[in-house]
Amino acid sequence: MEEQHFKGRGKPIRCRAAICRKAGEPLQIEEVEVDPPKAWEVRIRIICTSLCYSDITYWKMEVPPAIFPRILGHEAVGVVESVGENVKEVKEGDTVIPTLLTECQDCRDCNSKKSNKCSKIPFTISSTLPRDGTTRFTDSKGEEVYHFIHVSSFSEYTVVDIANVTKIDPFIPPNRACLLGCGISTGVGAAWKTADVEAGSTVAIFGLGAIGFAVAEGARLRGATKIIGVDLNPKKFEIGEKFGVTDFVNPSSCGKKPVHEVIAEMTDGGADYCFECVGSASVVHQAFASCRKGWGKTIVVGVDKPDSQLCFNSNEVLLSGKTITASLFGDIKPKTDIPLLVKSYMDKELRLDEFVTHEVQFEDINEAFDLLLSGKSIRCVIWMDKDKQNLPL
Amino acid sequence: MEEQHFKGRGKPIRCRAAICRKAGEPLQIEEVEVDPPKAWEVRIRIICTSLCYSDITYWKMEVPPAIFPRILGHEAVGVVESVGENVKEVKEGDTVIPTLLTECQDCRDCNSKKSNKCSKIPFTISSTLPRDGTTRFTDSKGEEVYHFIHVSSFSEYTVVDIANVTKIDPFIPPNRACLLGCGISTGVGAAWKTADVEAGSTVAIFGLGAIGFAVAEGARLRGATKIIGVDLNPKKFEIGEKFGVTDFVNPSSCGKKPVHEVIAEMTDGGADYCFECVGSASVVHQAFASCRKGWGKTIVVGVDKPDSQLCFNSNEVLLSGKTITASLFGDIKPKTDIPLLVKSYMDKELRLDEFVTHEVQFEDINEAFDLLLSGKSIRCVIWMDKDKQNLPL
Repeated sequence: MEEQHFKGRGKPIRCRAAICRKAGEPLQIEEVEVDPPKAWEVRIRIICTSLCYSDITYWKMEVPPAIFPRILGHEAVGVVESVGENVKEVKEGDTVIPTLLTECQDCRDCNSKKSNKCSKIPFTISSTLPRDGTTRFTDSKGEEVYHFIHVSSFSEYTVVDIANVTKIDPFIPPNRACLLGCGISTGVGAAWKTADVEAGSTVAIFGLGAIGFAVAEGARLRGATKIIGVDLNPKKFEIGEKFGVTDFVNPSSCGKKPVHEVIAEMTDGGADYCFECVGSASVVHQAFASCRKGWGKTIVVGVDKPDSQLCFNSNEVLLSGKTITASLFGDIKPKTDIPLLVKSYMDKELRLDEFVTHEVQFEDINEAFDLLLSGKSIRCVIWMDKDKQNLPL
Repeated sequence: MEEQHFKGRGKPIRCRAAICRKAGEPLQIEEVEVDPPKAWEVRIRIICTSLCYSDITYWKMEVPPAIFPRILGHEAVGVVESVGENVKEVKEGDTVIPTLLTECQDCRDCNSKKSNKCSKIPFTISSTLPRDGTTRFTDSKGEEVYHFIHVSSFSEYTVVDIANVTKIDPFIPPNRACLLGCGISTGVGAAWKTADVEAGSTVAIFGLGAIGFAVAEGARLRGATKIIGVDLNPKKFEIGEKFGVTDFVNPSSCGKKPVHEVIAEMTDGGADYCFECVGSASVVHQAFASCRKGWGKTIVVGVDKPDSQLCFNSNEVLLSGKTITASLFGDIKPKTDIPLLVKSYMDKELRLDEFVTHEVQFEDINEAFDLLLSGKSIRCVIWMDKDKQNLPL
């Protein structure tokens, strides 16, 4: 690697970023200045990023925690351009995935197998970097541009905390690796780590987006024998088959029969595991009703509005023996588990190719929004510069 | 054993029973006729029975599922007097515990390690025997007297389904064995089977009645290092120490600090397991708030009113990673697990003696109600005829 590639080291880098200046308006590709990493930070050259529905949620949102101007994007892969003081874990040239969740590898949660909720740097819908609460982006007018959940991957370069960085095998194609930054890890993790789906079990998945399909993929790899996809869009059913979905329920075609009765009939009394991947309290209730008494688990994966309530009849919970739990980022500990998911893909077990329905260049990033909003894409990969993906820094 | 002791075999037996004729009024000791067992049924001579709070709940209740006249009681031990057709599992003279939950040993639930909710004969607040929906009790005026949740142990003789009968080691003292018919099994099971409390963990128990103490006893035997009892009655704190309760929180002495903050301070962020043993939705919410993020489990053991709702903020559930589950009869499978609890007592591990604070004769059964209602007793054992406990049938 030639020295010239590290010309930015220790200095600000000028590059292109897609800035969200107003809720719901197209992102604007602008030049930004990206500060060098401070202590415990890493500056990353993004190779590609994919669009996740949470980006859309915060792009649409008009009130706090929404904030503008902001660089969205949180599902990406890149190469370390430079590191700040105290960073030993990665070095220039390493292939890394930045993640919204941290793993400090030091706190009680990071030391426990049961939790992925790092206490040292807890997850928040943050608009700055975690240690000093400041930003590393400035626009061409010299004004501050906000971060998004510690990642901000809709920029050719970004700065993230080392606790948010996972080093991965550089041989995985970047347009597959980026998917593991959020959605696919969340879904597969929900099946593997939160639910711990076992061979022979029955699974119902409410909402067939990328996360729902990733739950199916996780359940398929665990040997679930019946994987029921529930969605209003029949087009999702064909795609679902690629991820092991065996049966489909379209709530609008069930007539007067409630969905949970249809599922009970298909599963001899209810599914062992029901995953809610829509982000709707009423769908959580449907999922709970669709679980098998005695051992059924309802796993909440979707994110509903901040004030949304989940209500259950107390005696129904007691008499049914069903459990309610939730899965944030699939209970995946980024540094521990993402490399295992990468390996599973490289070993031709975990399917990732099938999630990528579209690929666009960075300048066409707004197209990726249209594709996801219209339900046409599962995952659209956005290449920062496809021709230069294999070049050194 | 002499033939004369089986004089009732195949015929009705006349004996004494404590009948609840009107909600909240003292039980009346009356003569009843107890039919012989039909197919799949067992007639049991009750040796002793203890009073559980659910008996009080259904004694006080004025509207359905309350029904009168009824023979309450569901925590008991007895000896098989005779068996109906098809009963091979127990024979005359066997010591048995009748239980409100069934174990048919044949259905999908009974064959699964995960469920104690038999599908063949599901638990209901029943007033009759399960297979033919009729009663076996008649009063002196020839009128039908109703059963209570398949047990009705406030009678010298009762008839129960074989699915509700567990054969036990006859050497356990009857005034200890009876406790395993409901409350103590529920509490110990909630700690062992539902929560699966492990050594070194922290536990908070909301409500220190017999079930709460039994949860503590289960947690103590599992090696929990901190067992916090939460109750408004400071007298419960002394008793709790016998069952391994290490710390006490009296919500009325916490000043302005909410209980969950007090518990968070005592446990470095929240207890690993929180058990609700009161039967109040608002206490369930307190328990949920008192759980450690990342892995905390809230276990609902108490029974609230039929229309009571448990409501949680959707995002709090998602971001906290806490689980909500419930424990009906401690997830104990009667025939499988009660003999193990008996053995644990006989091996001097499980403490039962300390639960029995009072013992009365059958004719003084209403005293047992007063003692439990006033919070003076943990368990009051009611002897059907103490002098004759060791006699054959």
